[in-house]
Amino acid sequence: MADPATETAVYDELVSATKETAMLGAVESLLGWDERTYLPTKAASYRADQQALLSGIIHQHKTAPKIGEAIQTLASSDLASDPNSVVGANIRCLKREYDKKTKVPQELVEALTRATVLGQQSWVEARKNDDFEGFRPQLEEIIRLKIEQAQAVGFEECAYDALLDDYEPEAKTSEVARVLAGLREELAPLVAEIADASQRPDVSILHRNFLTAQQASFGTQAAAKIGFDFDSGRLDVTHHPFCTTLGPNDIRLTTRYDEQFFPSAFFGTLHEAGHGIYEQGLPVDQHGLPAGMYASLGIHESQSRLWENMVGRSEAFWDHFFAPAQKTFSSLADISKDQFYAAINNVSPSLIRVEADEATYNLHIIIRFELEQALVNGECQVADLPAAWNEKYEHYLGITPPNNADGVLQDVHWSAGLFGYFPTYSLGNLYAAQLFNQAEKDLGDFAPQFAKGEFAPLLGWLRENVHQAGQRWPAATLVEKIAGEPIDHKPLIDYLRGKLAPIYGL
Amino acid sequence: MADPATETAVYDELVSATKETAMLGAVESLLGWDERTYLPTKAASYRADQQALLSGIIHQHKTAPKIGEAIQTLASSDLASDPNSVVGANIRCLKREYDKKTKVPQELVEALTRATVLGQQSWVEARKNDDFEGFRPQLEEIIRLKIEQAQAVGFEECAYDALLDDYEPEAKTSEVARVLAGLREELAPLVAEIADASQRPDVSILHRNFLTAQQASFGTQAAAKIGFDFDSGRLDVTHHPFCTTLGPNDIRLTTRYDEQFFPSAFFGTLHEAGHGIYEQGLPVDQHGLPAGMYASLGIHESQSRLWENMVGRSEAFWDHFFAPAQKTFSSLADISKDQFYAAINNVSPSLIRVEADEATYNLHIIIRFELEQALVNGECQVADLPAAWNEKYEHYLGITPPNNADGVLQDVHWSAGLFGYFPTYSLGNLYAAQLFNQAEKDLGDFAPQFAKGEFAPLLGWLRENVHQAGQRWPAATLVEKIAGEPIDHKPLIDYLRGKLAPIYGL
Repeated sequence: MADPATETAVYDELVSATKETAMLGAVESLLGWDERTYLPTKAASYRADQQALLSGIIHQHKTAPKIGEAIQTLASSDLASDPNSVVGANIRCLKREYDKKTKVPQELVEALTRATVLGQQSWVEARKNDDFEGFRPQLEEIIRLKIEQAQAVGFEECAYDALLDDYEPEAKTSEVARVLAGLREELAPLVAEIADASQRPDVSILHRNFLTAQQASFGTQAAAKIGFDFDSGRLDVTHHPFCTTLGPNDIRLTTRYDEQFFPSAFFGTLHEAGHGIYEQGLPVDQHGLPAGMYASLGIHESQSRLWENMVGRSEAFWDHFFAPAQKTFSSLADISKDQFYAAINNVSPSLIRVEADEATYNLHIIIRFELEQALVNGECQVADLPAAWNEKYEHYLGITPPNNADGVLQDVHWSAGLFGYFPTYSLGNLYAAQLFNQAEKDLGDFAPQFAKGEFAPLLGWLRENVHQAGQRWPAATLVEKIAGEPIDHKPLIDYLRGKLAPIYGL
Repeated sequence: MADPATETAVYDELVSATKETAMLGAVESLLGWDERTYLPTKAASYRADQQALLSGIIHQHKTAPKIGEAIQTLASSDLASDPNSVVGANIRCLKREYDKKTKVPQELVEALTRATVLGQQSWVEARKNDDFEGFRPQLEEIIRLKIEQAQAVGFEECAYDALLDDYEPEAKTSEVARVLAGLREELAPLVAEIADASQRPDVSILHRNFLTAQQASFGTQAAAKIGFDFDSGRLDVTHHPFCTTLGPNDIRLTTRYDEQFFPSAFFGTLHEAGHGIYEQGLPVDQHGLPAGMYASLGIHESQSRLWENMVGRSEAFWDHFFAPAQKTFSSLADISKDQFYAAINNVSPSLIRVEADEATYNLHIIIRFELEQALVNGECQVADLPAAWNEKYEHYLGITPPNNADGVLQDVHWSAGLFGYFPTYSLGNLYAAQLFNQAEKDLGDFAPQFAKGEFAPLLGWLRENVHQAGQRWPAATLVEKIAGEPIDHKPLIDYLRGKLAPIYGL
């Protein structure tokens, strides 16, 4: 098929079918959003049936033979000649997804579904009863199946590559390991220095009274100010906050309010707004296609972390927002901006990842990443996992979990089969630091703008460089293209030390 | 096919396919609920595309040839021998729906869709500009197509029968006309008497300040008290209140709050809760099948009207609720229960149907019902419609619309092709009076129970007699079966006169 007109017709048909499938995917996302925000309690089981039905219909659409034929035809056509052009990237990424989906045998998919459903049930019980042995057989089965999955999909260097690829397309384990090891070697000593510092913020000032309605209004205003468009999205309340995309102009953020702790909802809202701003900045005409989709989970997390931490926990941000905050919350009346700024940047080694601060968080991730690789390549047996976990916590964070419930059993991920997911959290922090660095190189210091409540220049830079790129380049390539150098841990370390040294008097 | 085992297998397969289609229908309802409650403004057009996509998929499922074959097979089987058994009613009603859907040619369906989309746009403009002539050609086209639709579906007595049947299955125009004429002949004089009465409630007391948050809490408590289960449903805010079913345990009510007028949200909430209570009482194991579905729009409206008016506007109801109302709303502090009770039962001829009171409302409906028949059987031309409208308003309600915008152009229904829908509102009021009457015959006077805040006996009676019946009998048959006599206007007139005479000193 060398006829360009025919090629274009095949491409157009593939685009239209893919957009239709994405439209059903967005319906599925609405079912999920509603389930986690407004669903009446007794409606849960019918909703699960609806989700299964729709997910089956979507799977049929995605794996239809005519999709495979179109992709096969286009992969060797002139349209695919530039793999980073809009059209080329769409063909490349759709082929990648289709191949992966069709390489894994149906029995393995079903076995994984069963194992992870049982796995999550077993994990809930095990965590409740601090009973790792009760969870061990399920975890062994899940790891066995994930290795089988990796083998079915295929890999060049190691099986973990194939798993990582589901969340960070085309990333290489060796490369991620190199940069996270570099980070660990500088971060662990920094965290130890901070733990030993005598100068410490008073975090009790964040545990005062903050009324939900006032938090909601203050958080919404801040999210709008940094650039989240509330005509193309919303903010609702949920138990486990998330951001979901229900259409090109329909991005739903969620948060939860703790009336006795300010940071949880506020920085949570900025975090989800960062995800949402990214989704709102993707190319609308490519919605539903790879070129209109986020590059990777790591890039997604870079956007949420950048707005949450590099912007939202910066001193300049509070130069602008502290006065309105004092006006909104009477409990901040006797607090200075400096006290507040120090408190929201408190760093302290702790047991639980989801409660960890900006600096120690990455050590939690590195521990999981190292253990996941060892489990997948056979260097660590599941039976030895609790000991390995505790040893790493002692080694990197200087603390030892008192039990497995608050140690190796704290995360749902492994019970759900999510191996290769954790590193994307730290990749997000690394990308964020590199991107923010480059943005300041291009546009100058942002602090004076933030202090005036101006975020449009940074947003514009992200829109142009990151958001509009969609999935046209693999994440690492995209960051290197923008920052002019490969992914590196130095910018994140420099950023953390630069901020934390004055606060802790290092 | 005389083999009962085979018949049962065919039935089971039909049930399973029908339930699956209903599950997709419930997804479509979620898209609609979200659109009318929470959808961000810029997301409207993508949502419309999603709805169209899903509605196409559902149409394919409903009209699939294998469905038609199964229905054909079952219609002549032993399973269909009792048309009012659960299985017999499912086969009978599914056949009815399938036949109707497949009798109307695809071109006519599309022509109707086009004409009603254009019709509604044209109506919006015409109403805004008080320009009936601008709407006339569209309305003529819609009526022409509706007559064509009636001819395609077929009818015994008159074309209007085929249209009415879409909303009130198996109702006969002649029968509805008989009972509504009887109602009109007694209601118009009653309304005239009231209009001339010298004793009148002071309605200004309802136009005081009622904070939204307090209205929401008070309305929610009342809806829960009469029997709406908030573990199987919710109450949200919208512009044009509705009730929608998203699953067997997922019934969503909506309302809107007017801080300067108490009745709008409160009685609106009771009204929608009445619809919701009906949906919550349908047989769960038959969900998605006719035997698990509401009998007709008339029966649905009977349930909303019964709780809104016969319960919610009764004196006994406020014997219980007036003290809490005074506690909630300081603006009621200087009002007596008697004043309040009279005010919420104010009757006064007015121009606009949706703002009409419980008594005059039916005259608005009767006018539309009479005009619809005349338009469909050719006795009235569209060009003569405004004059005919105004004449009937003068005749039945004693008022003449000052313009067409507040007259013949006030409702969206005709522009949307909804001919045969209006009479179901009054049928609802008639059914409600007959059912409430019978319930009191069976269980005794409810007033003492209402005065103690006890609604479970009435609810239980409705569950057993009305809700659990689903669609097993046509509405008129169901009411006659329960009340022991055919549908009649007397119970409604007796109820209205009984309540209004003391208030107006008649």
